[in-house]
Order: sequence, then C-alpha cells, then structure tokens
Amino acid sequence: MRVAELSRTSGVPVPSIKYYLRAGLLPPGERTAPNQADYGDSHVHRLRLIRALIEVGGLSVAAVKEVLESVDAQGADLHEALGSAFAATLPARTAEEESEYTETARRTAADLIERHGWLVGSDSKNVEALVSALAVMYRLQQHDVESMVELYAQHANTMATREVAWVAERGDIDAVVEAAVVGTFIGGAVFNAMRVIVHESASKKTLAAS
Amino acid sequence: MRVAELSRTSGVPVPSIKYYLRAGLLPPGERTAPNQADYGDSHVHRLRLIRALIEVGGLSVAAVKEVLESVDAQGADLHEALGSAFAATLPARTAEEESEYTETARRTAADLIERHGWLVGSDSKNVEALVSALAVMYRLQQHDVESMVELYAQHANTMATREVAWVAERGDIDAVVEAAVVGTFIGGAVFNAMRVIVHESASKKTLAAS
Repeated sequence: MRVAELSRTSGVPVPSIKYYLRAGLLPPGERTAPNQADYGDSHVHRLRLIRALIEVGGLSVAAVKEVLESVDAQGADLHEALGSAFAATLPARTAEEESEYTETARRTAADLIERHGWLVGSDSKNVEALVSALAVMYRLQQHDVESMVELYAQHANTMATREVAWVAERGDIDAVVEAAVVGTFIGGAVFNAMRVIVHESASKKTLAAS
Repeated sequence: MRVAELSRTSGVPVPSIKYYLRAGLLPPGERTAPNQADYGDSHVHRLRLIRALIEVGGLSVAAVKEVLESVDAQGADLHEALGSAFAATLPARTAEEESEYTETARRTAADLIERHGWLVGSDSKNVEALVSALAVMYRLQQHDVESMVELYAQHANTMATREVAWVAERGDIDAVVEAAVVGTFIGGAVFNAMRVIVHESASKKTLAAS
C-alpha cells in the first residue's frame, strides 16, 4: 500500500509516518518509483506499536527507538528477544548510593529470588531496579516492610506468570515480541490505573467505616 | 537543629537542601538569627520524602512540588488528602482520541467499577487513565483482552486494599499522607520491578519446557 493508505489503515497522520521513517523507528517501504514506496502489514503493526509506546507507555521517541532496536536485533532467539524487550521497559533511575539500606535490600532481593525460584541473571537490570526501590523503602523506615514485600511478590508471581502465558499463545516471533512489549506497557498502565482507583475507593470505605 | 545537622541526619547535601528551600519544596526553618535557622524532625521527614519522589518515583522537582502542595493544602480532611495525593501520582498522558475503542473502553471501565463496587467519582483522573490504557489495548486488537482485564482487576483489588490498610495503620494525618504517597510510588516501583523479574523468569521456564 502507498503512504496515504498506510496512514488511513493505521490511523497515524502522514507527517508522523514520515518523521518515524526519518528517525529510523519505521523500516523503509519497498521502493517502487523514485518518489514512491510500498508498505505492508508489518508497517501497520509497527506503527501501532510505536504509537502505543509513546501514548500509553509515555516513552520518548529516543526510548521507543531503543526498545525497537533491542527487539529487531534478536532474530530467532525468542528468549533473548523477550528478555531484552522487558529490560528495555525499565526507566533509568538514580541508583541509591551504597549504604546499609542497599545491603539489606540486596539480601531481601536474593532471598526472594531463591524462595520463589525466579530464574534471573545476577546482573539483571530488573534486579537492580528492585534493589534500588527496596533500599529506599528501608531508608524511609516504613513499618512492616517485610509483609508488604511478600504481598507484592505473591501478586507479581501469579499475575506476571499469567501474562507470559498469554503472550506465549501467539504464533510467530514478531507477534510474541510485540505482545510482550505491549503487554508490559499497556498491561502495566491498565493495572496501575486500577491500583490507584482501588486506593481511592478503599480509603473512602475505610474512612466511612471509622 | 542547624542546616549542617539537618544534612547529616537526612543524608541530603547542604546545597540540595538550600535548593529545595528556594524552590519552595521544603518549608523554611525557624529564624534564630539573621543568617541562621532552626530545623526540626518535620524537615527531616520532608527531605526523605522529596528524595524518594525524585530518586525512585522519577519525578521532576516541579512534579514533586505539585504533589507536596496538594498534600499540604488538605489540612485535616484525610480522605481528600489521600485522594489528591494518589491523583497527583498519575503521569499526564496524551489522551486517546475519541473513537470506537474509547467507547468500548468506557463501557468496560464502567462495568468494572460497578461489578467490583469501586467508590470513585465519575470525573476521577484515575478512571480517565484507565479508559485511555484500555482504549489502546482494544485498538491494538490484542486477543482475549477481557480475561486480562479481569486478571488485573482481581489483583488490583486485593493488593491495593491491603496497601490502604497498611497506610491507615499510621497515627496522625501527616504520617498517613506521607505513607500513602511513599506507598504509591515506592511500593509501585517494588511491584513493577518484581513483575518484570517474573516475566523474565517465566519466559525462561516456558521456553525450557517447550
């Protein structure tokens, strides 16, 4: 299809499509004449993915490029592709400086990984993000941190295992990787919105009862 | 205490403290001499909260100011204070333009709110965020959206209800509001890190079994 039809099908305006082409987010179409290119279904999918990452994931164009590059670089190794796609979704955050809290946080994380049998590399960015967040929780001396951490671990276990099964039901590698990226971001946005809705609702109920 | 001791106690460098004072994030100390002020425990707490919001919440100084202002403005009305603090935690995102997907998403959200008995205002920003994310999920035509939405709703229900109970165990309004803000951000960061760790782990297990 030509660029005008690609725009109609995907719902993305032509100037945006041209911008994504120039920025290297969208692979070029097949050239059919000096000023004309042909686009396929893969372009429609890729455009939807780009828009979802920007609009709901809240990612910058540069961050979208990084996610897509890690997905594109993987070829046929599904496991590597999924791992990179998930790792690329984590925002870079200032690391908690090394302190007694970081040590406690690292022990807690190692204990969780062992008890729950999580298969993660020791150099996983995801584990580092967990240690950072836990260290801040300990530093702020919130009471009863352990029982909250266990609550989060149990929910993360059952919820994320179901999500991965949902993603794995797709057919080919492209569909699986796309679903994994979309699931992480869009699913995450859906869940986070529900979580604060329940916060709002539960505090109203608690206060009404007291 | 003087500013040097405030810095030692809170772990925040003096230049950062002075910057937060100028930016209006930290209330001024009690002036004891033309060039000298006295700070108390409330300053230590506030500094820890500011650092947590910036480092783990990933918020800008301007966003932190907005959160703190909505907390400070509430006075004694706990319910309003909690609601504003939670609403302030939601990132502003480009709204999905009105479409068939938005209509479907709005119906789904209304149905969830009714079935789960969530007490939220119809103009809640949190509900708008949910509708936006759901609309993108429908637009991307991911299969079996309904069962994922129900999975998220069940986890949000039990997890967030426990979180609110945990927050409500605190004593005075300041401690409750601080715990609510910290819980939303830091608890959210802890949970999100665990979620992607389980994604990574579960995909390795799925692939090893196939």
